[in-house]
Amino acid sequence: SLVGGSWLSRAPYEERFGPYVRRVVSRSSIPTRDEISMALSYAKESAVVIRRMTPFERAEILETAAVLAVERKEELARILALELGKPMKDSRGEMIRVADTFAISASEARRLGGELLGAEGWERGRGTTAITFRAPVGVVLAITPFNAPANLLAHKLAASFAAGNTTIVKPPPQAPAISNAVVRLLLDAGMPLEAVQILHGGVEVGSALSSAPEVAAISFTGSAKAGAAVAASAGPKRLVLELGGNAATIICSDADLDLAANNCAKTGFSNSGQSCISVQRIYVDSSIAHEFTLKLTAAVARLKVGDPLDDSTDVGSMVDDMAASRIVNWIDEARIAGAIVTIGGVRSGATVLPAVVSGPPIDSKVVNQEAFGALVAVIEFNDFKTVIQACNRSEYGLQAGLFTNDIGRIFYAWRELEVGGLVVNGSSNYRLDHAPFGGVKNSGIGRESPRWMLDDYTYIKTMMLRDISLWGDE
Amino acid sequence: SLVGGSWLSRAPYEERFGPYVRRVVSRSSIPTRDEISMALSYAKESAVVIRRMTPFERAEILETAAVLAVERKEELARILALELGKPMKDSRGEMIRVADTFAISASEARRLGGELLGAEGWERGRGTTAITFRAPVGVVLAITPFNAPANLLAHKLAASFAAGNTTIVKPPPQAPAISNAVVRLLLDAGMPLEAVQILHGGVEVGSALSSAPEVAAISFTGSAKAGAAVAASAGPKRLVLELGGNAATIICSDADLDLAANNCAKTGFSNSGQSCISVQRIYVDSSIAHEFTLKLTAAVARLKVGDPLDDSTDVGSMVDDMAASRIVNWIDEARIAGAIVTIGGVRSGATVLPAVVSGPPIDSKVVNQEAFGALVAVIEFNDFKTVIQACNRSEYGLQAGLFTNDIGRIFYAWRELEVGGLVVNGSSNYRLDHAPFGGVKNSGIGRESPRWMLDDYTYIKTMMLRDISLWGDE
Amino acid sequence: SLVGGSWLSRAPYEERFGPYVRRVVSRSSIPTRDEISMALSYAKESAVVIRRMTPFERAEILETAAVLAVERKEELARILALELGKPMKDSRGEMIRVADTFAISASEARRLGGELLGAEGWERGRGTTAITFRAPVGVVLAITPFNAPANLLAHKLAASFAAGNTTIVKPPPQAPAISNAVVRLLLDAGMPLEAVQILHGGVEVGSALSSAPEVAAISFTGSAKAGAAVAASAGPKRLVLELGGNAATIICSDADLDLAANNCAKTGFSNSGQSCISVQRIYVDSSIAHEFTLKLTAAVARLKVGDPLDDSTDVGSMVDDMAASRIVNWIDEARIAGAIVTIGGVRSGATVLPAVVSGPPIDSKVVNQEAFGALVAVIEFNDFKTVIQACNRSEYGLQAGLFTNDIGRIFYAWRELEVGGLVVNGSSNYRLDHAPFGGVKNSGIGRESPRWMLDDYTYIKTMMLRDISLWGDE
Amino acid sequence: SLVGGSWLSRAPYEERFGPYVRRVVSRSSIPTRDEISMALSYAKESAVVIRRMTPFERAEILETAAVLAVERKEELARILALELGKPMKDSRGEMIRVADTFAISASEARRLGGELLGAEGWERGRGTTAITFRAPVGVVLAITPFNAPANLLAHKLAASFAAGNTTIVKPPPQAPAISNAVVRLLLDAGMPLEAVQILHGGVEVGSALSSAPEVAAISFTGSAKAGAAVAASAGPKRLVLELGGNAATIICSDADLDLAANNCAKTGFSNSGQSCISVQRIYVDSSIAHEFTLKLTAAVARLKVGDPLDDSTDVGSMVDDMAASRIVNWIDEARIAGAIVTIGGVRSGATVLPAVVSGPPIDSKVVNQEAFGALVAVIEFNDFKTVIQACNRSEYGLQAGLFTNDIGRIFYAWRELEVGGLVVNGSSNYRLDHAPFGGVKNSGIGRESPRWMLDDYTYIKTMMLRDISLWGDE
Repeated sequence: SLVGGSWLSRAPYEERFGPYVRRVVSRSSIPTRDEISMALSYAKESAVVIRRMTPFERAEILETAAVLAVERKEELARILALELGKPMKDSRGEMIRVADTFAISASEARRLGGELLGAEGWERGRGTTAITFRAPVGVVLAITPFNAPANLLAHKLAASFAAGNTTIVKPPPQAPAISNAVVRLLLDAGMPLEAVQILHGGVEVGSALSSAPEVAAISFTGSAKAGAAVAASAGPKRLVLELGGNAATIICSDADLDLAANNCAKTGFSNSGQSCISVQRIYVDSSIAHEFTLKLTAAVARLKVGDPLDDSTDVGSMVDDMAASRIVNWIDEARIAGAIVTIGGVRSGATVLPAVVSGPPIDSKVVNQEAFGALVAVIEFNDFKTVIQACNRSEYGLQAGLFTNDIGRIFYAWRELEVGGLVVNGSSNYRLDHAPFGGVKNSGIGRESPRWMLDDYTYIKTMMLRDISLWGDE
Repeated sequence: SLVGGSWLSRAPYEERFGPYVRRVVSRSSIPTRDEISMALSYAKESAVVIRRMTPFERAEILETAAVLAVERKEELARILALELGKPMKDSRGEMIRVADTFAISASEARRLGGELLGAEGWERGRGTTAITFRAPVGVVLAITPFNAPANLLAHKLAASFAAGNTTIVKPPPQAPAISNAVVRLLLDAGMPLEAVQILHGGVEVGSALSSAPEVAAISFTGSAKAGAAVAASAGPKRLVLELGGNAATIICSDADLDLAANNCAKTGFSNSGQSCISVQRIYVDSSIAHEFTLKLTAAVARLKVGDPLDDSTDVGSMVDDMAASRIVNWIDEARIAGAIVTIGGVRSGATVLPAVVSGPPIDSKVVNQEAFGALVAVIEFNDFKTVIQACNRSEYGLQAGLFTNDIGRIFYAWRELEVGGLVVNGSSNYRLDHAPFGGVKNSGIGRESPRWMLDDYTYIKTMMLRDISLWGDE
Repeated sequence: SLVGGSWLSRAPYEERFGPYVRRVVSRSSIPTRDEISMALSYAKESAVVIRRMTPFERAEILETAAVLAVERKEELARILALELGKPMKDSRGEMIRVADTFAISASEARRLGGELLGAEGWERGRGTTAITFRAPVGVVLAITPFNAPANLLAHKLAASFAAGNTTIVKPPPQAPAISNAVVRLLLDAGMPLEAVQILHGGVEVGSALSSAPEVAAISFTGSAKAGAAVAASAGPKRLVLELGGNAATIICSDADLDLAANNCAKTGFSNSGQSCISVQRIYVDSSIAHEFTLKLTAAVARLKVGDPLDDSTDVGSMVDDMAASRIVNWIDEARIAGAIVTIGGVRSGATVLPAVVSGPPIDSKVVNQEAFGALVAVIEFNDFKTVIQACNRSEYGLQAGLFTNDIGRIFYAWRELEVGGLVVNGSSNYRLDHAPFGGVKNSGIGRESPRWMLDDYTYIKTMMLRDISLWGDE
Repeated sequence: SLVGGSWLSRAPYEERFGPYVRRVVSRSSIPTRDEISMALSYAKESAVVIRRMTPFERAEILETAAVLAVERKEELARILALELGKPMKDSRGEMIRVADTFAISASEARRLGGELLGAEGWERGRGTTAITFRAPVGVVLAITPFNAPANLLAHKLAASFAAGNTTIVKPPPQAPAISNAVVRLLLDAGMPLEAVQILHGGVEVGSALSSAPEVAAISFTGSAKAGAAVAASAGPKRLVLELGGNAATIICSDADLDLAANNCAKTGFSNSGQSCISVQRIYVDSSIAHEFTLKLTAAVARLKVGDPLDDSTDVGSMVDDMAASRIVNWIDEARIAGAIVTIGGVRSGATVLPAVVSGPPIDSKVVNQEAFGALVAVIEFNDFKTVIQACNRSEYGLQAGLFTNDIGRIFYAWRELEVGGLVVNGSSNYRLDHAPFGGVKNSGIGRESPRWMLDDYTYIKTMMLRDISLWGDE
């Protein structure tokens, strides 16, 4: 942990057991209650230091960090592979995205400004000139998840810094080393110590931080349940919550089936399906369902499962054995209820062989709950409007995919699907770090990607100049 | 109460005792637990009905309502005077603002749109076109306060409708008749029954509604304490909280003292000071403090106190005797601690004579807590930077006023004051219904005024078209 | 003519001969050289008067004018029918659009504002705060065409006034009465005399005005040739030029043929094709060309041609006999060159029977030049990319239509067609008064519709405050 | 010259005589009429090549160029000093700004996008969805001036490339080597040959290019007279014209006189006053005029005049002997008419000693015409409103300076001065490469700085999808 400008390095330590390598790979110092208080006081005082940096200074540091992230890509990707079982090719990809995220945040810092409002557009504003700008909220709390611990930390911390805030990071217990490494990278790039602290720990640490009055805004990525707890403890703070999903992807009869099958195979099992937008429910038009399922199964069969440190591996391990065990149980439950598992569904340690579950009952866990693991469910449909309703029959609403070329269906789905984002001719599992990302319903509130995060990490500050008119007073 | 399209009219009733006229002036039916559930289900179903109206249809209804609000001004202003003791001149002003608020909301409805994002501005976006629009969240809960029960209901309901949502209104127990009257006005203007329900009641009703999963966003105006309770019960919903304030106004030595004194007298006691931005703390440069206090006292002496139904009355009664009694007690406490009350500070029933409290200790209630009543405190200062810090020494941060012509001081204050809005050459108590309004710290989160409310009453919905480029693919 | 606040009413008069009613229907006073000079001086002085009105005052006048336009619809529509031979149903439609245009302009006036720029986003801006607003340019010259003389005058004059300018209108010689009537309507709505002058006349009047140094911006709608002359005489002024077109509409094999045929019949002959976006070239996929041509011919046969004052008439007369004669000649030229005229193509006076010219040579006038009359050419195509190139083989580039549901084709056409606007599942002849309208190549520069016109009728005025930072200076 | 992808290197050459070093320092090949035609055809064909690069590719090239500009700073600054007599410290500054301009342009390229418009906000838009984006115009002609030949070429070329266009550069005859060097730098950074051509020459070359139909937009910086000629020959093209100025700076009685005097001395004579916003007219409140003039004269006396290659030189030579001679004549004319020259006003070759001309008649050339040389005129004033009118009594309106802290005066001046930009507590001679820059009246039209240039280097392209609603159709 990094508290008040100093790295803690003393017991109690929490150790992280690498799920594929089957040994302890990292550890973190857990802060005491006093250290948490100290961190909060330090953040309060540091907020004004960061706010007084000019935006270009913050931008230049972030641009330097983008360069460093590329330079340290191999080293940090290896940490990701060790701590999480994420394959090197995905881990490297995550580091490239970290670099992008820093550069995008820098670009947003440079644009921070405001408006001169049309105050005299309505009669009561006669003789008044109103101007706004976006002032930093002060202290942001960033609670990050284990599945993309580098890039999501980068998003929250870089956007908060771009906005002119200091940030307290509460990383996931499963990824202490990579979290520390990303923070160190930013410090090496010139980020002042006052801009960031990192407090390792579990729910108690998170809860102590989220309920603290020093914190003005919270950015949380994690489960719906944990998000609800954060919201309840936070009280009146600005919240951005990126919670779970059981994302649907729809394959229409006019779709390019090879494209759809290969895309779903790839994006349904990257990071062993541990992504809130991973393809979980595939709805296929019944006229092409058989052919699609064959192609999908074949594509899944081509995925190489194994050692995350091996450059050719497509699918490594899940985060831990318990998660892997849950996924296998869910698959078995669906099988017993009548589903056909065309491939995969067994595990070794934390590694689950990618599973295609065809025809599961609509009330089975693989359909209704968030799987967050190496499975996809394939479900047939007959009618487009009906399948939209089926997709919406979920407590979640993050993203969806749709394979079709018909503009009527595309816009109908965009309008009627209860999701934050629709991907057309791609699966639900597609995210650009410079496009707004986030959900509705139990998938959360607010949007990530630096430009939109800045809206929540700043507040609009208005000045009204009375007896000052831009039009005339004579 | 208006539930599921029907007005309730049966016991139990809650009666409202007019604070000036000293008799029951209105009453409201309190919904049962079942009716609350029914209202929530009805809202859920109605959301899609309102969303499917086109924006121009919603805009036209709001424009019709703006016309009706002017037509019914006298009638509704009289209800405000009776229920709340608000003078007719202020009540009429509130109705004019209701009309403006409807027209401004209509204008925003007509502009609802989105963006075509520069998806190909970063490498990972190659070959993708991303488009967004703002989709309605569905069900908005509007919890309104007693001090401007018509215009703040108008803000929340009109902006929510403009955005395409259905709204549940929980009005203040002190203002049932005016709340019903504003809703009826909108229905008469053509707002569909599916667009609005009104559930009278107290904390229990509010809490049942704010914790309901059917509700996607809550707009609350009230005390900081009540706002915190709403936030805690709401969980992960989009919140706009407009809470309290003990607003400061600074008078520099170069100020126009007549302007400043008259403005503070008027805006410190309009609605008996019952406004979250009412002038409570006046910081005066010591070189002009004596002269300013004389002028202020003289200006306050010119205010006509009395029957709110009398057209010439400037100051009517407070909301109830308890509130008036509290204000008098606070003034007495300050007096005992050494302050000089240059005028006012006594009460008759709910009516408090406007009080100027000069030189109160900085730890007295009239300085530190939210007065929300007919008093202003006058405090001397010697140094500009120091007085900014004094203003910031408050748990609140809504608005501030500043009388000076010096551009250096003006921008310094804008930057350094911890508030949502600064009024220059006017007091803290100035609000335009078309400029962003809201606070920081315990004064809340989010901004009101229709344009900004629409940001919180909608969510960004993104579509990413893969293999569609606006630049080239050959 | 209205010059310097007074209506001229003396010889020399220019008379307008109604093309259908075959008699003089209106006349206009032509200003002398001295009166033109006077108008320019008056405009220069009046600019500051209009600029000093607050935007809400300008908006309220425009909103009143919107109401008046609906009230006077019948009367003004009749003038359109008499002066131009435009059928009453189209003339009424034009007046409804005039009303919309006023209301849309009012809405834009209310929003005039600016930006607080991120000056400190780049190092050289350290310590500077930059703010902009949009100041009126002063004097706008509006040169309007005969084909939609009410709505295009409304666009130019209302947008110019909304922006805070005074305007000199040079109307078309063919439509003096309707032009005067729209100006009178605005004056009756409260527009100050200083805001508008109207100078009738031909090329010499236009040229004297466009070359005058008092004029800061020119908005011209007319032919490409006349537009080039305006540009050459204007010198360094802001120009918005809406010039000609020979618009193409593409019908793909997946199109709804009934929709396409009926739409092309209606929008190819409304106002006898005298619109710069009228459907002139219809490119039809060869697999459906025969069927489409039959349907189109049948739909054209259903159009009622005749007296513009008759409520049931679809197609009235063209602007004059010479125009009608030219159209018939072009059709004959195409016929001789091998085209088949499936219907129409003869004239009586200024009335041309709607003509469908199937298979004209690609170098015939009906394909290559701007017809601006009652004909459409139907041409087959075999390949989508090739037909896009065929459409682009024109000196013009205003709008195009495309009938298909394929998202790939839609975005390809949007990207590759050299036009200002593409209408999907509609013909080229579709315009919303609140969406940007204008062309490329010889179809002009700039965009109409009030919001975009305001960009050209104002200039960005910047203020840079040195040693004023929104971030920090300590 | 660089034509059609190849550098010309053959006679006829035009030679450039270094104004300080008194020898030929560079030369350029002048294209023939055929080569001009070839360049135009090549541009037309290349436009589509550049448009098809994705924006991120263009951005990355520009970012590489920013790095190169810093690396080559010394070398290119030396060329500026030799060709133009510009002191090394200013020349280095110009190269730093070139780097910034490339980076700012890159940032704008990444943001190119559009809007989803509220088409259904007005009744006629029911059932339509409208989307826009900014498409490149194709071929941009950049005619650059001699006074900042590197940075203004950088602005025009980088912004045009960022927008997706190809550019033809017509550089000033006085600066062939630096113009070539900046183009080479961009090519070395990866800009494709199709993106740029450079055609040296004088008025005939410029005129042949500006009248060519292949050119869609022209960005010109130069004299008002030359700008008018460009406009007349261009016809209907999008024009950005940055023309002359005789900029005023106002010093009020409350100003910081040391700051004002030093700032005016520095910015009145940088580049020997050869800047369109150089301080030419200083209006001083009469109560402080004497003191200010003394301080200004003293500050000017501290400027080091001499060899531009010497690192300590503040003022080098003017562009040529004729320009220097003209300035000295103007000063003499003013002296004869009664002005007092407190310092400077003599010349040696092209070098003019910085001159302060106190009390010139208001009709003298140093007041009324554009000096563009090493002089400032000091004029007293008594009344603020009157001095604003005096400033406006100029055919030009580019920028102004104002030294005061009074907010009333500041906003009054912002509103009433007929200029494109006002600098507060700085002189007229201040420009940020990321803020809009440009004038009114004879100072031109349009705004430079990449973000605003992109508006003129692109056109809005609209797509209207009929029968597609974002709200509902059931």
